[in-house]
Amino acid sequence: MATHEPARSPEQRKQDVLTRLEKDADAWIATASSSGEPHLMPLSFVWEHDSLLMCTRSTNPTLRNLESGNRTVQVTLGHTRDVVHITGTATVFPSGELPTASADAFAAKLIWDPRDSGPSYAYFRVVPQRIQAWRELNEIPGRDLMSEGAWLV
Amino acid sequence: MATHEPARSPEQRKQDVLTRLEKDADAWIATASSSGEPHLMPLSFVWEHDSLLMCTRSTNPTLRNLESGNRTVQVTLGHTRDVVHITGTATVFPSGELPTASADAFAAKLIWDPRDSGPSYAYFRVVPQRIQAWRELNEIPGRDLMSEGAWLV
Repeated sequence: MATHEPARSPEQRKQDVLTRLEKDADAWIATASSSGEPHLMPLSFVWEHDSLLMCTRSTNPTLRNLESGNRTVQVTLGHTRDVVHITGTATVFPSGELPTASADAFAAKLIWDPRDSGPSYAYFRVVPQRIQAWRELNEIPGRDLMSEGAWLV
Repeated sequence: MATHEPARSPEQRKQDVLTRLEKDADAWIATASSSGEPHLMPLSFVWEHDSLLMCTRSTNPTLRNLESGNRTVQVTLGHTRDVVHITGTATVFPSGELPTASADAFAAKLIWDPRDSGPSYAYFRVVPQRIQAWRELNEIPGRDLMSEGAWLV
């Protein structure tokens, strides 16, 4: 829990978050089943239209949890000592309803096009409602960067 | 999603998991509230008595979720392309009831002793029921290393 670096300003944190959303390929996503069982999985994403576009097999628990109507998710990027923490609402796209430009953006970033795999994969979009960013204990104050879907910085 | 390394044997994966449990300091932990809201947080841990001993503030959602009776958790270690994925059951220790040797092991590994911070912190222990380990797509087959609390390897 030792802290070696000075706390970043809110403006710096926002810039760092946007850079990570642009450049990172993977995120951890936590969902819950209708009976309240938590599920945690790494998934790739592309940041577009101010949201995280993700994709997984329709049979995977992440998607089943979203389809059951529990659309609140928590998403984190990167390392446990450089946290970007997002609470958001996920919307699943019915097969074939994701705009082509978005599917193209996903394929271009991730060098993987789920459209090649047929209907067993489903896209969904996570719209952030709250974003926090912190590295170590000294950055717990000031970690709120977005609230109720609006940037605070 | 590209794969560069050959898939590891089950024995190698188990050894890698045990090494990570011994040496890693942080994990992601997903819990769910009684109303089914997922929560995802990084926490430090020490691996002892075949379980992950963790600690957080009593007021944090992770602990509130466990106290509400929803004791199923999912825990992951490390990088999204080197996943150790644990489904377990968490037990919270009432204040002062964690054995001293365990609290000492936590403090020694993490160079942080929650006992110095008074009763606002609570320890809990996650006993793994299922452990999976995979790096990339070619390691999805054979990722099950523990089932129903027993090592398969």
